[in-house]
Amino acid sequence: MRADHQRTAEGILFTDQYQLTMAQLYFRVGLHERQAQFDHFFRSYPDYGLHQAGYCISAGLEWLLDWMREARFREEDLAYLRAQRTREGRQRFGDDFLAYLRTHGSFEAISLRAIPEGRVVHPGVPLSIVRGPLAMAQILETALLNQLNYQTLIATKAARIREASRAALVLEFGLRRGQERGANAGTRAALIGGADFTSNVGLSSTLGLPPRGTHAHALVQVFLALGHTELDAFRAYAELYPDDCLLLVDTVDTLESGVPNAIRVFEELRARGHRPVGIRLDSGDLAYLAIQSSLMLDQAGFPDATIVLSNDLDELVIWQIQTQIAAEAPRYGADADTVIRRLVYGVGTRLVTSHGEGALGGVYKLVAIQEGPEWRPAIKIADSPAKLTNPGLKQAWRLYDTRGNATADLVALEHERPAEAERITLRHPSDHARQRTLERSALTGIEPLLVEVLREGHLVYELPDLEQMRAQRQADVDRLDAGVRRIVNPHIYHVSLSAELWAMKQELLARIQAES
Amino acid sequence: MRADHQRTAEGILFTDQYQLTMAQLYFRVGLHERQAQFDHFFRSYPDYGLHQAGYCISAGLEWLLDWMREARFREEDLAYLRAQRTREGRQRFGDDFLAYLRTHGSFEAISLRAIPEGRVVHPGVPLSIVRGPLAMAQILETALLNQLNYQTLIATKAARIREASRAALVLEFGLRRGQERGANAGTRAALIGGADFTSNVGLSSTLGLPPRGTHAHALVQVFLALGHTELDAFRAYAELYPDDCLLLVDTVDTLESGVPNAIRVFEELRARGHRPVGIRLDSGDLAYLAIQSSLMLDQAGFPDATIVLSNDLDELVIWQIQTQIAAEAPRYGADADTVIRRLVYGVGTRLVTSHGEGALGGVYKLVAIQEGPEWRPAIKIADSPAKLTNPGLKQAWRLYDTRGNATADLVALEHERPAEAERITLRHPSDHARQRTLERSALTGIEPLLVEVLREGHLVYELPDLEQMRAQRQADVDRLDAGVRRIVNPHIYHVSLSAELWAMKQELLARIQAES
Repeated sequence: MRADHQRTAEGILFTDQYQLTMAQLYFRVGLHERQAQFDHFFRSYPDYGLHQAGYCISAGLEWLLDWMREARFREEDLAYLRAQRTREGRQRFGDDFLAYLRTHGSFEAISLRAIPEGRVVHPGVPLSIVRGPLAMAQILETALLNQLNYQTLIATKAARIREASRAALVLEFGLRRGQERGANAGTRAALIGGADFTSNVGLSSTLGLPPRGTHAHALVQVFLALGHTELDAFRAYAELYPDDCLLLVDTVDTLESGVPNAIRVFEELRARGHRPVGIRLDSGDLAYLAIQSSLMLDQAGFPDATIVLSNDLDELVIWQIQTQIAAEAPRYGADADTVIRRLVYGVGTRLVTSHGEGALGGVYKLVAIQEGPEWRPAIKIADSPAKLTNPGLKQAWRLYDTRGNATADLVALEHERPAEAERITLRHPSDHARQRTLERSALTGIEPLLVEVLREGHLVYELPDLEQMRAQRQADVDRLDAGVRRIVNPHIYHVSLSAELWAMKQELLARIQAES
Repeated sequence: MRADHQRTAEGILFTDQYQLTMAQLYFRVGLHERQAQFDHFFRSYPDYGLHQAGYCISAGLEWLLDWMREARFREEDLAYLRAQRTREGRQRFGDDFLAYLRTHGSFEAISLRAIPEGRVVHPGVPLSIVRGPLAMAQILETALLNQLNYQTLIATKAARIREASRAALVLEFGLRRGQERGANAGTRAALIGGADFTSNVGLSSTLGLPPRGTHAHALVQVFLALGHTELDAFRAYAELYPDDCLLLVDTVDTLESGVPNAIRVFEELRARGHRPVGIRLDSGDLAYLAIQSSLMLDQAGFPDATIVLSNDLDELVIWQIQTQIAAEAPRYGADADTVIRRLVYGVGTRLVTSHGEGALGGVYKLVAIQEGPEWRPAIKIADSPAKLTNPGLKQAWRLYDTRGNATADLVALEHERPAEAERITLRHPSDHARQRTLERSALTGIEPLLVEVLREGHLVYELPDLEQMRAQRQADVDRLDAGVRRIVNPHIYHVSLSAELWAMKQELLARIQAES
């Protein structure tokens, strides 16, 4: 994309046309500056087909804030809107509305609460709550959904791959298979959610991380094409990178050529006082090849050499590889744990595209609008009971049981103080018959999840850095029940409404149904 | 992402680390300026699980060229590389290599051939061929794959949705569900592949298209929350947009409230001399609701009112809706064709994420490297026969049969002139036993597919505009057999090698196997 086009396509016009036609309508009827609240939440965990997430990891907030800070209607943007014509050839957007956008068309009046990045999150709990003038809060929808949904989707997938990989290093390799520039957002989210490092050089630079990567098949092919050998290629690599020598061994034949040549080069390195890093396997039966390679490396006296696996890995494939190694290693005289402990997983396509579920269905719903001193709750009543939005101004709380594990998330009205109550009633969001009451004494903690991030456009929150987000994610995941953490058929975590919010929802529903 | 970070993450460091470590190795052994050729191709059609593509549509070239023109190693980029350390704390990239990147680290010496955007393309045929100095041709890999793979994936999905939609208008609505800024690339590719318009305002602006969009549920909810009605909301909308009045009718109850209210407003518009556009259905049983809405609109005297359908549509869902309408419409006294002809499809998530197959497995393989006056073919021999790359410098040809339909793509060596031969031998790419010979007289045309785009960095090709790409796509699709166009279980199109290329591949393979 040309640079001037990029400025246009990634600026405030990074939105859907109907946001602008609605904004003009609000302007025309005098509602554009009316304070409104929109909740951003998702209705269900990603379902990857054969397996489902039991929790998600929030991500994307910092980049959204960066975008909001810069986005405003420039003269070029207004000129394009002014040039739009109706079917009958009239100007679609009036000059008075465009003048309004010129002076007020930014996110400077928006207030935002959000669950910080790196936290475990669940369906039906607002990930972010936007309050501000109706017109601009409406226009924000598309960019907010775009940024928060995608990064949350990928942080979630990365957390699942993290689960499957146990303590092993996970490397993100997806840059070439993401959606154009958006792949960078995928890399960032993967690093928040569970990947340790990435091959993405530019993004590593912006995050202050060292990128990972050694060589591709092309290197060996160049040497072969010019009449040299795989061993020559490995030697040249070891000569240049004696301290970072990790060799891709499957260009010719993994066990017949690649691993023996790598070991020969490693021995030469050792003789010169260097410690080789290991090998990478990128094709074939990775579990079998890992066992055999591990035995060969051990025999040659390289028990610390790592084995990087890549090639369409995801959480299920990694799980399967470990299962196969556990079953097969003894047959070859190898210790399965030893093999598994030396593995590193390079995950590309299936992480950056969230294989099996390529989008998080996060939505942005109007929940309240101000009328004089009052907030009027909004609800969308054509939906099935399970899809009804929760009206009003809210806070979300996480309840920890006596083991210190998260036992439920509670969505309550903003003024409620569940931490101070003696007992807490949890209502099922849509099923009238289901509720339970918890004694406060049965809980070791009640924690508010949403923090104030923007107050009328001003940042009032200290954004965590990558390491803080990762520590938060690990702490949150560690406080989940093992059943919720399962990568297949997870136990369903409880998300409940407070009795007061539940009653308000029922009352509003009854009133609207009576009126219509 | 911060603006300065974006410049870094989207510049020349939008690449994988191993491209840089390999480039330095080539530099160290004196191969960095050696002319090399890489082919970009995909090995199989997207497989969406229950259904598979029988052809793809190429897209992404223009944006790749824009990126290549601007990308170069800036001082900040070099500083980041200079700061990288090996495990032992030594500088990873030498100052001499960094000095080389400062002066030669751009794509100014790269030559590129490619199949133009909007063309039908098939597996195993190079979509693009890169020639240039080995180091920079290697560094290009990641960005090239990133841009061409994703846009080709989405143009292909759009073409399938186009097939299923027949003559109906298709609108792209996916901005909020794409991968961050990359969603713009998805919009562009969708417009090349089969979508008529998009809701994406910024991208419409850069392409000179009018964006599409009317209003969301939020508009009706605002009115309801403030004590007004759905009818009030529709009236306000019609008042402001009398010539573009398309109303979303499922906020309260589609058939009980939405459609009757819309018709009432349409009647008021008609009385004032305006032509209403139609309605949009976004939930429920879309086929059933389309039939009923169509009948109601007809009865009210609005036979030209369109019905826009949205909500997780894709090619199968659209096909199913049409099938259901064909079966059910007569039962309600409606003419199925009349209902289907007034439909418009709004396609979001499942188009921008290519639902069912979120990545195109396009690869970038070294095929030849220069040694003196000679080109040495390269091949990766660990692969299965079907994955063996085709060595050497190539052109691809499309053969048209006596009906004018494309009957096969032929990959030949660059000097071959199949159009001038009396008969053409087509070899199966991997199966020795399969070949056929075509008489030139049985063909109505032989067309070269790859055009010269960059000659040592200079653009020597006039890039088509959107309308030209779409016309090319339609012409190419029209010349496919109906079986190849099927959206489920398509007939396999023939991609063949010339006898000469096939013989060269066998000879090379035999030589390498003998050596190893």
